[in-house]
Amino acid sequence: MRDRHLHRLERAARAAAERGLAAVLVGPSPDLAYLTGYEPMPLERPTLLVVRPDASPRLLVPALEAPAARSAPLGGDLELLAWRDGEDPYAAAARLVAPAGTLAVDDRLWAAHLLGLQRALPAARFVPASGVLGGLRAVKDPEELDRLRRAAAAADATFEAICASGLAGRRELDVAAELAELLVANGHARAAFTIVAAGPNGASPHHEPTERTIRTGDAVVLDFGGALEGYHSDITRTVVVERAPEGFAAVYELVREAQEAAVAAVAPGVPIAEVDRAAREPIERAGFGERFLHRTGHGIGLEVHEPPYAVAGDPTVLAPGMTFSVEPGIYLDGRFGVRIEDIVAVTPDGVERLNRADRALRTVG
Amino acid sequence: MRDRHLHRLERAARAAAERGLAAVLVGPSPDLAYLTGYEPMPLERPTLLVVRPDASPRLLVPALEAPAARSAPLGGDLELLAWRDGEDPYAAAARLVAPAGTLAVDDRLWAAHLLGLQRALPAARFVPASGVLGGLRAVKDPEELDRLRRAAAAADATFEAICASGLAGRRELDVAAELAELLVANGHARAAFTIVAAGPNGASPHHEPTERTIRTGDAVVLDFGGALEGYHSDITRTVVVERAPEGFAAVYELVREAQEAAVAAVAPGVPIAEVDRAAREPIERAGFGERFLHRTGHGIGLEVHEPPYAVAGDPTVLAPGMTFSVEPGIYLDGRFGVRIEDIVAVTPDGVERLNRADRALRTVG
Repeated sequence: MRDRHLHRLERAARAAAERGLAAVLVGPSPDLAYLTGYEPMPLERPTLLVVRPDASPRLLVPALEAPAARSAPLGGDLELLAWRDGEDPYAAAARLVAPAGTLAVDDRLWAAHLLGLQRALPAARFVPASGVLGGLRAVKDPEELDRLRRAAAAADATFEAICASGLAGRRELDVAAELAELLVANGHARAAFTIVAAGPNGASPHHEPTERTIRTGDAVVLDFGGALEGYHSDITRTVVVERAPEGFAAVYELVREAQEAAVAAVAPGVPIAEVDRAAREPIERAGFGERFLHRTGHGIGLEVHEPPYAVAGDPTVLAPGMTFSVEPGIYLDGRFGVRIEDIVAVTPDGVERLNRADRALRTVG
Repeated sequence: MRDRHLHRLERAARAAAERGLAAVLVGPSPDLAYLTGYEPMPLERPTLLVVRPDASPRLLVPALEAPAARSAPLGGDLELLAWRDGEDPYAAAARLVAPAGTLAVDDRLWAAHLLGLQRALPAARFVPASGVLGGLRAVKDPEELDRLRRAAAAADATFEAICASGLAGRRELDVAAELAELLVANGHARAAFTIVAAGPNGASPHHEPTERTIRTGDAVVLDFGGALEGYHSDITRTVVVERAPEGFAAVYELVREAQEAAVAAVAPGVPIAEVDRAAREPIERAGFGERFLHRTGHGIGLEVHEPPYAVAGDPTVLAPGMTFSVEPGIYLDGRFGVRIEDIVAVTPDGVERLNRADRALRTVG
């Protein structure tokens, strides 16, 4: 892992140089884990990795975190600078960068820390680091792809297991709790999220599971995922309990057709915005455009949502190794929702679906 | 709860007015939970509560989160504005505030969102919201105090249980896993952190548990806490296995004396910086000042660390209802560490210790 992290740091420094950045400043976040393997908690005491095109990377840490930072994967490679409680960490950070350059800060850095840096560096210009790191992280290496594949397979197995358990007569909350257990039982280190949205609740894409009991005739949106060796799964299937509600079958087939069309559009050299377009086209043609409430998908890896995004306006052109979700949906207030989601990987000559769970309409007990 | 949240929103608006703020902008964070009871995940799609002195609070949400926001505790009270994927959420937020005022943003808002707001509001001035919300959140109401008391009692019970389990011959990692289980078994909804640092590892205040086996003659720093109905516990005890290492007893007594002195200094009207001073004084006098690597304590509530901070320079004057940790420590590289931590509450006439676990040196098997 040490070589991989050193290589990533070099690539980040090179990418920063190409973009004219004076430095990239990274706090505790997936960016820091990606670049160094160090994963402290984000806290009110700033920890900052400083990556510069013209200098070795340095890590500014609270004094009480220094021993932990030193025993992290790159502890012996990074120059460590410790600041003590009562000192001004932003002034210390300012001494590590050019006072008037453009600085990229990791997207998840806390606003309080960015404001501290802006105060200490009044002549600097700040931009989000996803512009420089997002592109690096978007293209997965073979080991990352292997983890994403295994996470997807564990999510597929979780879907089969929850269908076998049955949904009728159970509360959304209880099904969500079983999904979390199944994600771990099937190989995830932890569950990340479990959406169970029955009947009209399915019309809320990010519904929080409630005490509502799942009944015959409900459509149920199941959207869940977890982390496996740091990499995430994310799958959605919409099933019906015993029988489909009125008007459901046609909407389901439409979403399935849209998802197929979007996956078929994935290939190297294709703008990701066209994948969104491909999903949206059949849904708009059928008159449900306004009920497709969200973008078609999001990149996935160390984060459940990360660049690139399958949405109009995203400038990303697909390249082999990119992984993202394809998840069109239609949401009918007061009635039901339908969403079908798989993770896909761009291959040298097309696309690989990482999720294999059947997409034909499933009737469960 | 609805009345309590509406009251908090009113107080926040009033506090913003007193500080000359045009608005307070709050993303998914403990600040949002405190003000509204709504607890969405922080994501790349911004959710922003806008609190203004001169207008009703409004909540800007991604369209796909709107149904969930509507069914949140204040869903019927807040004016909801939804933005759709592909639209510019920062431009939408900019329309909700005066273009040139001072805006407070919650400390945990992601940098990517703050940069978006700064781009959309080039004439505004941004400051951290802890300056206005930290003071409100620092003073707990009776129900919050009750939760913190119960969380502390559950942490005390966890300490007694782990001592009864014994430490000798076990790996730090295994003891940490048992602590997490015990925190939940004793009433927490979840464990938040579990530090187990044996022998020389104790010299790292935020040591991550390892495979090191705990042996006779080790001093072991146990620092752990969890969340109970949203409110946190946080306790540290340092115990010895069978017998104390050389030089340990005197250092332990010094830390205990420092902790007693700091707790004794707590009273309404006292600057919190004096609590830090009281802990530091005996340790400096004994020549260990440089080995007391951190501040004396931190506020606690919805977050494990929140304002006020017991550190030189914190301007907070203690008031009844404030709760914070008192946790001096001495760290001797290559040998051991000692830290003793309790949560205390400021009462109308002094101090209440929320943690009651014995602070006399404990020898365990």
